Amino acid sequence: MAANVQDVIMLVGDSLTQGGFVPFGFAQQLAHVYMRKLDVINRGLSGYNTTWAIPAFEQFFARQHEQRHVPQVQLLTIWFGANDACIPPSIQHVPLPQFASNLSLIIQKVKNPSSPHYSPLTRIILFTPPPVNTHQRSADLATRTPPRALDRQFDVTRQYAEAVKIVGEKEKVPVLDVWTDVWEAAGKVEEQLSEFLYDGLHLNEKGYLIVHQGLLKLINEKYPEIAPDNLRFVFAGHAELDHSNLEQSLQKRSAFPN
Amino acid sequence: MAANVQDVIMLVGDSLTQGGFVPFGFAQQLAHVYMRKLDVINRGLSGYNTTWAIPAFEQFFARQHEQRHVPQVQLLTIWFGANDACIPPSIQHVPLPQFASNLSLIIQKVKNPSSPHYSPLTRIILFTPPPVNTHQRSADLATRTPPRALDRQFDVTRQYAEAVKIVGEKEKVPVLDVWTDVWEAAGKVEEQLSEFLYDGLHLNEKGYLIVHQGLLKLINEKYPEIAPDNLRFVFAGHAELDHSNLEQSLQKRSAFPN
Repeated sequence: MAANVQDVIMLVGDSLTQGGFVPFGFAQQLAHVYMRKLDVINRGLSGYNTTWAIPAFEQFFARQHEQRHVPQVQLLTIWFGANDACIPPSIQHVPLPQFASNLSLIIQKVKNPSSPHYSPLTRIILFTPPPVNTHQRSADLATRTPPRALDRQFDVTRQYAEAVKIVGEKEKVPVLDVWTDVWEAAGKVEEQLSEFLYDGLHLNEKGYLIVHQGLLKLINEKYPEIAPDNLRFVFAGHAELDHSNLEQSLQKRSAFPN
Repeated sequence: MAANVQDVIMLVGDSLTQGGFVPFGFAQQLAHVYMRKLDVINRGLSGYNTTWAIPAFEQFFARQHEQRHVPQVQLLTIWFGANDACIPPSIQHVPLPQFASNLSLIIQKVKNPSSPHYSPLTRIILFTPPPVNTHQRSADLATRTPPRALDRQFDVTRQYAEAVKIVGEKEKVPVLDVWTDVWEAAGKVEEQLSEFLYDGLHLNEKGYLIVHQGLLKLINEKYPEIAPDNLRFVFAGHAELDHSNLEQSLQKRSAFPN
């Protein structure tokens, strides 16, 4: 059973998060650059919207009285909107004002001292959903059995991305604007989004690379104390070991340098 | 802070384990196939031999009285030998009998009811180190500043791999024989190991693929109850949600089906 030797980065979201451990996915890349410093815990729930995610979040984010027993969440990423933005009557649809208040609610669960889940040390980053390539998405859905009609619209997902940015301002939480970063990388041409999305909705390697690079840049700007280069190995590197006092030099340390 | 919503697979070893979260590495691949079922915790320590790993293991594997607070280790992989097999006077060298007894000691820490770290539910798999390509390793070390002499021998590492298999038999722990699997894939020709090793010592994508495929096969044979296909999502898949009783259907479940 794992002792609390490393703190964690917790990734919360939908399928874009759940799929993050693919080769070159953002969870894979984070786990690699934070090796021996922070563990990366993936709590992505494919297909979930914010309304369904809230009860799950309450179960996987420890309550205050449990927090001393479990790894500290040094960074929490929250990435929703791709499913909330489904067009009605999709059961996944969450109205825009409800989506915004759900995001605020998740943030307040962590940041509000009166919340059972209050965790003042946890840093939060909100992500916007990526833009949808409706041409590619329609073609993909047409191949399903039975074929399905287009379930998302380009402009609707853009509104949900804008809402995330407004929530970030209101809650004073940094926002990784995946929507804009991917849109600009595609030259602001919807068809060219296929360079970054494999099915019109989900990121491919090149899309996740934009997320990973943007996330590391944002961590360095907003939370430099947890940038990978500013943390040390919890167990000393083998070349650092003091062989005249091995027992001492093999003691675990905080990843934060003194 | 993370609550204990998913049990874990803990990967213990040296740089071959530490590097497992590279794209197509065995940690990355495990994390992806076990998503929403088990978390993958990487405790690889580059450069470490078994002697140095034991005090670290005692700190990152929970003691009995802590175990109810932290995630259960459903599977523990132990992969050493690559550094223990360094040629004297390398400080990494561990004599062969000591290497074998160190491996037994780590296993007994988990399996022996009188051990403070006793964890009867934890399944263990031992890995053998991969074969060394001394031609490739020599060429790599010659490019270092200053240049370094060859530090490992093909036949010595083979002996350490054999020792792992003997320990596995003695301790009744299944062994993933990475040495033999990679050696056979290379047609039993040392120079051809470069297809699977990027520097004569560490596995590349093709090498890690052999490890991942072998590990999943071994899990299916020896511990089928934790094979990925025999576990379920801890939080229900979105298509499984019962919208007439959403609260109930969003309750976390054991990954083991009833």
